[in-house]
Amino acid sequence: MNFLEQRILKDGVVKPGNVLKVDSFLNHQMDIALLDEIGEEFHRRFADKHVTKVLTIEASGIAIAYPVARCFGVPLLFAKKSKSVNIDGDMYVAEVESFTHKNKNQVIVSKRFLTKEDHVLIIDDFLANGCALKGLISIVESAGATVEGLGIAIEKGFQCGGKQIRELGYQLESLAIVDSMDAQNGGLVFREQK
Amino acid sequence: MNFLEQRILKDGVVKPGNVLKVDSFLNHQMDIALLDEIGEEFHRRFADKHVTKVLTIEASGIAIAYPVARCFGVPLLFAKKSKSVNIDGDMYVAEVESFTHKNKNQVIVSKRFLTKEDHVLIIDDFLANGCALKGLISIVESAGATVEGLGIAIEKGFQCGGKQIRELGYQLESLAIVDSMDAQNGGLVFREQK
Repeated sequence: MNFLEQRILKDGVVKPGNVLKVDSFLNHQMDIALLDEIGEEFHRRFADKHVTKVLTIEASGIAIAYPVARCFGVPLLFAKKSKSVNIDGDMYVAEVESFTHKNKNQVIVSKRFLTKEDHVLIIDDFLANGCALKGLISIVESAGATVEGLGIAIEKGFQCGGKQIRELGYQLESLAIVDSMDAQNGGLVFREQK
Repeated sequence: MNFLEQRILKDGVVKPGNVLKVDSFLNHQMDIALLDEIGEEFHRRFADKHVTKVLTIEASGIAIAYPVARCFGVPLLFAKKSKSVNIDGDMYVAEVESFTHKNKNQVIVSKRFLTKEDHVLIIDDFLANGCALKGLISIVESAGATVEGLGIAIEKGFQCGGKQIRELGYQLESLAIVDSMDAQNGGLVFREQK
């Protein structure tokens, strides 16, 4: 079991509706030492890639992507979930459905910050149905940039997102893949990964 | 002129309506080396404070607060702008008006992560009318915790927020205070700070 799986077993809470609460250390209150370790692990897993930019999506993705961008020594770019008056009209847009919030967002990135010369590592905290990741992939490809890989902290392996994205041929690395959760007894089964 | 003021002059863009765009390095695409330097500077300015937690507000505040929390070796807690099914009912809530988005949000923090034992350093990227900071202050005080200080990357000195918060007696440190902006010629005047 790796350091993140151990932490999930220690501090994660399984709730009805396949909700895994990790808000004590990952996506509300954040353990910076753990996030730094996550950044180093993604840097190790994508060490052979030519990465010019790390792309994530607000909000909690930013804290996962920050140490990754530092390890690669590249800028961190985050997609915004709603049009802001501080963003120019010239943007890449993708429609994303949120598993957590049960709503649809337009996800936007300014065209000034993604070009066809960019090699992008996409990072997020959770992967469930994959809508957010697919939106980020479509934004990178709209820019003519290259998706070098995708790094996820926690994948819900019993939902379709991870399988679909791997079948598209992308290198998707999830530090913890949860294959089943039991809200009755708080049980949690991780997928074996080498 | 400090490192952030220099960067704002180099890469910031003044837009009509007193909008200062810093989205190429601070709040959309982020320069991690600059953010790390901001973290070290706040650590220096609040070195005499007993800080147990860094509190910010999503989304771009997270990237400013991350290096600060690392420097202090404490958890990073970010207030969320909308109720998420992943947050328990037991939360501190404040109403915050967004200068940028021209709307009102409920800003929430889970009660599990702020207690009266906490000494909180509040960090955000921008300070204009101060609504966001006042909301975060009210959340910290609802918890019976102590506000040790507030650190802001860019303060709009021609708006009332900074003056009001300093008059309340808090130590508010803004790395760059913009006293005037001119969208016609892109001019920008910083307040002298020792």
